[in-house]
Amino acid sequence: MSIAHERFDGKVVFLPGSTISGIKTISIPSPLTLQRGGVLQEVVLAYETWGELSQARDNAILLFTGLSPGTHAASNQENPKPGWWEFMIGAGKPIDSSQYHIICVNSLGSCFGSTGSISINPATNRPYGFDFPELTVEDIACAANLAVCEMGIESLHTVMGASLGGMAALYYALQYPGQVSNLVSISATAAASPFAIGIRSLQREIVACDPEWKEGHYEVGKGPFEGMRIARKLGLTSYRSADEWLTRFGRERLVERADDADIIDVEFQVESYLEHNARKFAEKFDANSYLYLSRAMDWFDCREHPLLLLSKKMPLPFRSLVIGISSDVLFTVHEQRDIATRLEKAGGEVSFTDLGSPYGHDSFLVDEDAFMPAVGNFLLASSNAHKAL
Amino acid sequence: MSIAHERFDGKVVFLPGSTISGIKTISIPSPLTLQRGGVLQEVVLAYETWGELSQARDNAILLFTGLSPGTHAASNQENPKPGWWEFMIGAGKPIDSSQYHIICVNSLGSCFGSTGSISINPATNRPYGFDFPELTVEDIACAANLAVCEMGIESLHTVMGASLGGMAALYYALQYPGQVSNLVSISATAAASPFAIGIRSLQREIVACDPEWKEGHYEVGKGPFEGMRIARKLGLTSYRSADEWLTRFGRERLVERADDADIIDVEFQVESYLEHNARKFAEKFDANSYLYLSRAMDWFDCREHPLLLLSKKMPLPFRSLVIGISSDVLFTVHEQRDIATRLEKAGGEVSFTDLGSPYGHDSFLVDEDAFMPAVGNFLLASSNAHKAL
Repeated sequence: MSIAHERFDGKVVFLPGSTISGIKTISIPSPLTLQRGGVLQEVVLAYETWGELSQARDNAILLFTGLSPGTHAASNQENPKPGWWEFMIGAGKPIDSSQYHIICVNSLGSCFGSTGSISINPATNRPYGFDFPELTVEDIACAANLAVCEMGIESLHTVMGASLGGMAALYYALQYPGQVSNLVSISATAAASPFAIGIRSLQREIVACDPEWKEGHYEVGKGPFEGMRIARKLGLTSYRSADEWLTRFGRERLVERADDADIIDVEFQVESYLEHNARKFAEKFDANSYLYLSRAMDWFDCREHPLLLLSKKMPLPFRSLVIGISSDVLFTVHEQRDIATRLEKAGGEVSFTDLGSPYGHDSFLVDEDAFMPAVGNFLLASSNAHKAL
Repeated sequence: MSIAHERFDGKVVFLPGSTISGIKTISIPSPLTLQRGGVLQEVVLAYETWGELSQARDNAILLFTGLSPGTHAASNQENPKPGWWEFMIGAGKPIDSSQYHIICVNSLGSCFGSTGSISINPATNRPYGFDFPELTVEDIACAANLAVCEMGIESLHTVMGASLGGMAALYYALQYPGQVSNLVSISATAAASPFAIGIRSLQREIVACDPEWKEGHYEVGKGPFEGMRIARKLGLTSYRSADEWLTRFGRERLVERADDADIIDVEFQVESYLEHNARKFAEKFDANSYLYLSRAMDWFDCREHPLLLLSKKMPLPFRSLVIGISSDVLFTVHEQRDIATRLEKAGGEVSFTDLGSPYGHDSFLVDEDAFMPAVGNFLLASSNAHKAL
């Protein structure tokens, strides 16, 4: 089954069942009861892979994504286009596809192939839209675990992710400790902060204020483009840092500012950058998916997870690398330290590092020089530890 | 002449000429040619005062405001309601009204009594609206200088301000160095940063996207309330800091969340705080005024002011106190250091202090314990220096 859905911008979005461009889908057992009570039928998750699964099935790395990207984390045979973590994943790269079987999964509720609000609700034969049930980060982790089991993989070498992906990875490791040897959590949080909730709440409100949102019941592909564009701009201001923008944009002006431009029109380079990037996002991301994933992040709070409260009675069986960035205002370095402290108190072997990148929350996407050795060395050490056993 | 204008919320806004609640207005010479070419007729500025002007007329302190507040910086005989800097201004307080004649001026272009977009354009007998000419921080400073001259005050003991007010105060001191003995610049900038421009650009776009803005030609009092409300929320997220909100709101929930609430509805305390405060602002602030003042801040760049480029050939004749806050993400502490360095290079006597408050850009409004001694001691030292002469 291969369904491709045309969006208003003429681009093709992959619906469940599609195998275009290397994106695979896998069905997970249903009915799937979600944490807040909703029930989904016929659930699929989209994913891409790099590298071969070893005969012992012990070299799989599960990668969760942040809120925005799809499964295409890096180029592969099926799709040579560079992915969102191109510098990190591939043969001879820090996450080495000649050693590991890497699986990047599209979050449950997202709009790049996994079951979400643009998927067809089998009960009505129409897209779920805003009738999709309430979703949590825990659901995203659990669905991915079911998918991994369906793949015949009983335990993961490593589970990892950044931002929303880091939250899902953290929960995954806590919830399935016997199935995970290593955790890499990057710019995540153990409990969404009021600042991040405030920003996301505002983004949701901006989307919902767009009349084209139609209380969530817009036709898929004809959603609130303006609202999504503006919400994304707000995202972009929170993903980077004031100091980085000073170096990057300074007070540069656009050359082409019109003579009759008024105080509302774009004038500075930074305004043009925001506009360009926000449009790209608004053209490809479904608004309801965005709202569901956004609220899921607000609700996340794993500080009272039983495994964190047992305090060394049953020491965490997985090693952890927790990476923070001091210039990150959205998921502060204090929140990363907090994750590390909690894992350590629970008896885990934890490395914490503040990479000090100037690129804010987005550092993991751009600061190759800092992230490649940090992640690479951690995986290398885990392999060496494995060999020594 | 006293004109009060009814707003849609039933509240009364003071138009030029009003003398209600202790707000005075003063006419400045017109036609007034603005920096970017516009010309205004019949220009007035609104202001309030505390303390008496000395016989020698040498004890006046001019206070510029940030973008949002009006002239009511502190309670006074005419209006006992606490003002926005109540802890700072009054008898025996750091800015001591028993020693100084304090003048707080409403910025040119604002909507609390000074000539701005809600004022009547004498040429058309209707409010300027979006036909108000382009405005700059330099215009705000120059208009205030004309008002001070009209008051018969030839030189100021101190010019001061925070945020937009700090930018205006900085320019005032540079432009009229012979008329200023002391400068206090708080959380300002010598040149608007791309990050702050990005945030403000987004706020303007949110306002302009509200259909009620009507390309700027809404009826005064019936403007884009929703747009202003959301733009203000974005402001609020940039005025404080993630760490402060963590202490202040944590992950507290509202008690009264409805059973049928969906993912868009307010659930966390922080969301409720944003909603409450944004409404208050949107009810009282004119949208076009907001847009003009916002863009004025983007344009500000005094780094090439002749007085800063002369580098000690003509040493700055005024003393400066520059205050920064390391938790301020909107006007970073680096920008405050930059102001201090430039003033020092130009031969000024400069004190720089990072007060380290956790309250971000808004610290000057809330951190009494840090700001009272910082400002008070600077003024005290200036008086002692004066006596010693």
